Amino acid sequence: MNIYVALVHYPVLNRMGETITSAVTNLDIHDIARAAATYDLDGYFIVTPLMEQQELVGELTGHWLKGASPNNDRKTALSLVRVVSSISETCRLIEAETGVLPAVIATSARRRERTVGWRELREKIQGLSDNSDHIPLLLLFGTASGLAEEVFEQVSGTLEPIEPQRLYNHLSVRSAVAITLDRLLGSRD
Amino acid sequence: MNIYVALVHYPVLNRMGETITSAVTNLDIHDIARAAATYDLDGYFIVTPLMEQQELVGELTGHWLKGASPNNDRKTALSLVRVVSSISETCRLIEAETGVLPAVIATSARRRERTVGWRELREKIQGLSDNSDHIPLLLLFGTASGLAEEVFEQVSGTLEPIEPQRLYNHLSVRSAVAITLDRLLGSRD
Repeated sequence: MNIYVALVHYPVLNRMGETITSAVTNLDIHDIARAAATYDLDGYFIVTPLMEQQELVGELTGHWLKGASPNNDRKTALSLVRVVSSISETCRLIEAETGVLPAVIATSARRRERTVGWRELREKIQGLSDNSDHIPLLLLFGTASGLAEEVFEQVSGTLEPIEPQRLYNHLSVRSAVAITLDRLLGSRD
Repeated sequence: MNIYVALVHYPVLNRMGETITSAVTNLDIHDIARAAATYDLDGYFIVTPLMEQQELVGELTGHWLKGASPNNDRKTALSLVRVVSSISETCRLIEAETGVLPAVIATSARRRERTVGWRELREKIQGLSDNSDHIPLLLLFGTASGLAEEVFEQVSGTLEPIEPQRLYNHLSVRSAVAITLDRLLGSRD
């Protein structure tokens, strides 16, 4: 199964619940690229409609991707990074690559309609469940205070929150991606 | 069971395998504090022998901890942070707090002697295993290229690597902490 992650900078919410475009950050690019490489994903999309921000990602990754750097581990990770303007462009690129539009699963710190359970998605990925198929999977992660409401309306489903029963529920998006990939793709004991 | 993490800046290795003191970073403090709060740890120790670096941590967290900031989530997380000079000082502080010296478990991207398995440690924490006890647990994470060799000689054991069977094995320490806490303390399906 082809699996992709997208880090969404638009449309996301700020702390006041307004829809904004957040800024890309160097460490989001690097940390999530390294997690994506560890769990052998097929691509890591950075979603921003802003041209200057797209160029910034190119500059931040270019240093490592162009010949001079001896750090091949970093190069391997960053070679997964692709910059796109929107979630729909991400889906079209995956379709162009695999021949099929992906199932798009959003993530959220709180429970949403059409929740997909951890076990359900893990088994689907492993081809263990009856309804497993060869549709690629795109996991969406929101920056800032999370994905805007309109995104949840357009996706196939939303993954169960990471630790919904706990009092404190404010992981960084970098930590959330790492834990999500490990829960879905990591070895178990 | 009382559980603590320590982010070690000395003694750690650089890419050449030399023992160094690494620099503290703002995002290591914040991301790991948020993960520690999520999994309800008893403390997050930042280990550096350098006085200026210790003061820097105080400045970086002080902004959020002192009254003015309305961001209580950040405050909750950062209130777990404690700055210490060494791993042994960390152990003494835990002893002062709990009455018992902690079991110290190191982490590493490669397999070491006296490996502790994920299931073994998880069951011990949950009090499921026969040899469970009330000794506090301190998990050590190395910055830079990981903990120096001398650390592994002094600990109770080293946790199994996260995904040792995979080709790419270079998670950021922030991601490694998040995944480790989730594997040991997170809900399962």
